[in-house]
Amino acid sequence: MEIRTQPLTSTAFAPFGDVLEASGPADMMINQGMCERFHDRAHCVAEGGRLGISIFRAVPRNLPYRLEMMERHPHGSQAFMPMSEHPFLVIVAPDDGGRPGVPLAFLSAPHQGVNLHRGTWHGVLTSLHPPGLFMVVDRIGTTPNLEEHWLETPITVI
Amino acid sequence: MEIRTQPLTSTAFAPFGDVLEASGPADMMINQGMCERFHDRAHCVAEGGRLGISIFRAVPRNLPYRLEMMERHPHGSQAFMPMSEHPFLVIVAPDDGGRPGVPLAFLSAPHQGVNLHRGTWHGVLTSLHPPGLFMVVDRIGTTPNLEEHWLETPITVI
Repeated sequence: MEIRTQPLTSTAFAPFGDVLEASGPADMMINQGMCERFHDRAHCVAEGGRLGISIFRAVPRNLPYRLEMMERHPHGSQAFMPMSEHPFLVIVAPDDGGRPGVPLAFLSAPHQGVNLHRGTWHGVLTSLHPPGLFMVVDRIGTTPNLEEHWLETPITVI
Repeated sequence: MEIRTQPLTSTAFAPFGDVLEASGPADMMINQGMCERFHDRAHCVAEGGRLGISIFRAVPRNLPYRLEMMERHPHGSQAFMPMSEHPFLVIVAPDDGGRPGVPLAFLSAPHQGVNLHRGTWHGVLTSLHPPGLFMVVDRIGTTPNLEEHWLETPITVI
């Protein structure tokens, strides 16, 4: 099966998570009018743990991309923000009875990140350009928070 | 008074906060060896509230920069990560009996962010290049969390 990328928009992505971007009017002006604050734009969850900040450095991939595995975190959300202006690939899927349904592939624009909602099936972090650096905000905890599902037939993202 | 910028290093910045960067060996390898995780690199605090993710868009400034005011957040840490590869200016000061002491000015390198520890005196977010976009992780709450101190004599950062 092949799936095509689509642009990352908050509307299309809403079933899976939040798009983190400076969109629409700012929620408040701060710093004597010199800074716009787009306030509290992610629904963060860290059940049984706490939120923390990590840095990921992912080996860049290319399109077409072969999707072999999807995963989800039942107890926490997971936010990814590129530390550069390069687009990245966000693959998600609805749940279909405890396994991922048909995936969707979103291609971000510069200055967009995502926050995957708790329990959302997703592909691994897919950088498309070096340096592949992302700021990550997710659940820090000591109890298990990962389910993996290997696809019977890999899917090609074009 | 004039102060000179210095490079942002975790050692020099340690009294004020965490430098968020992919430095040293990764804490773990994930995603079948395709991604390094620099794990839980910030000391986050959100006393009386919760951590949340916001986006800031700051009007870029230039050097020399005139510092007129410093502020601190007594109940929370505040993390800033550029959403581009541009350096930014981080001005902090030790506390001196309830007001800021002599400030220090740090110039970040690409792929560096900071997490200001709770209660650290700092200048407002100082972008040096458009688009001035930052991912911010700080305390979301309804009770006051801001102290401002206007300097009697502005300081020039060169």
